[in-house]
Amino acid sequence: MAQNIYDTPEFFQGYSGLARSVHGLDGAPEWPAIRALLPDLAGRHIVDLGCGFGWFARWARSQGAASVLGLDLSENMLARARAETSDPAVRYERADLETLDLPREAFDFAYSSLAFHYVADFGRLAATIFRALKPGSQLVFSIEHPIYMAPAQPGWLTKDGQRSWPVDHYAVEGERRTDWFAKGVLKYHRRLATTLNALIDAGFSVRRLVEWSPTPQQLHAQPALADEMERPMMAIIAAQK
Amino acid sequence: MAQNIYDTPEFFQGYSGLARSVHGLDGAPEWPAIRALLPDLAGRHIVDLGCGFGWFARWARSQGAASVLGLDLSENMLARARAETSDPAVRYERADLETLDLPREAFDFAYSSLAFHYVADFGRLAATIFRALKPGSQLVFSIEHPIYMAPAQPGWLTKDGQRSWPVDHYAVEGERRTDWFAKGVLKYHRRLATTLNALIDAGFSVRRLVEWSPTPQQLHAQPALADEMERPMMAIIAAQK
Repeated sequence: MAQNIYDTPEFFQGYSGLARSVHGLDGAPEWPAIRALLPDLAGRHIVDLGCGFGWFARWARSQGAASVLGLDLSENMLARARAETSDPAVRYERADLETLDLPREAFDFAYSSLAFHYVADFGRLAATIFRALKPGSQLVFSIEHPIYMAPAQPGWLTKDGQRSWPVDHYAVEGERRTDWFAKGVLKYHRRLATTLNALIDAGFSVRRLVEWSPTPQQLHAQPALADEMERPMMAIIAAQK
Repeated sequence: MAQNIYDTPEFFQGYSGLARSVHGLDGAPEWPAIRALLPDLAGRHIVDLGCGFGWFARWARSQGAASVLGLDLSENMLARARAETSDPAVRYERADLETLDLPREAFDFAYSSLAFHYVADFGRLAATIFRALKPGSQLVFSIEHPIYMAPAQPGWLTKDGQRSWPVDHYAVEGERRTDWFAKGVLKYHRRLATTLNALIDAGFSVRRLVEWSPTPQQLHAQPALADEMERPMMAIIAAQK
């Protein structure tokens, strides 16, 4: 079972204060880049893996999606997601992505935001999603970038005014424990190659890879995003069955 | 035109002393990983982009390839490659990958080892290779990994016994100048995403991405390869038309 860190009080409180938790999709700087990869959602049956507070599910319905199934491990997040909508076409269920089972060819689109790096066995998950999608359907997801995740002790280095992100252990895949709102948050480092090859092995075609960085307009509005020019924190992938 | 650094005397002399120059394919630690991605070469018409001393061309013929066209910008390397074989099915021509033109659907396989990072316009090159391949044929190539290339001043950092590779400017694509056998060797940094998306835009399907690291056996035989566990120096990509 994946670690359920989102249901520890200090993590949930910290996470709830993030711009992306307060403002939803528009509070996430990578959202315009994700949105650019999305197919037309009108009439689609969607599964959102790691749905959190349900921002994407509600937005997808506003775009005409036929239904959204939001899955999350966190009872806290599901409770808030459920409280935010009375839409009968949006359904939330508790699920562990590590052991997930989904009905065969039940969905026209699969989405996930910053959840898959909590999963140890991505190959299993990719195969599960592939089976659950109708032919021609897409999976679009974001993950923490392996450059960001690889180091045993991640952190910035500043030398002569230049910030850099020391990378080590890139080829050593597996558990990474970091302190982020709570001690010992458990994530799984995988090389970008491992993630892409798992998708290919599951049967997907890779349509797009984005190693996210801010636009000049975003940099102007939020100068702190300049860090994201030095090393990518997120990767966004679009794949097609 | 790409920089022709291989024809400067100090660079050519230094490069000629590398294990991969002296011992050929078996002197390159990434060769087993590349070889694992190659299709059966028997009967194939092959183009090798950046053929250097012609080690791959000669090996491909030993595997039954019908013909190999080796292309390189360096007169020095072509001269040595030509001197190494009298095989009429191996032909060497001088070519600049930046402005390359190839006949349409003339080849069954395209190969390149550590050459494409010298090319500014990879999108143009990918489209040129795609047109030159027969449908169903593959392109397999290696490049310097962008984690290795990104930093403005690349180099190791050692702290408390842990070596790391500080990454900066990852999202800032374009020229990188480093000193390697000669001053100011000009390479072009591209994100892995940019390379993969250029292939996809050209029409290729991505079949495999390898962010190369040594096997336990290689580490045992060559302990210095432990560096490659910390940060990848090479990426190997297989793509299919």
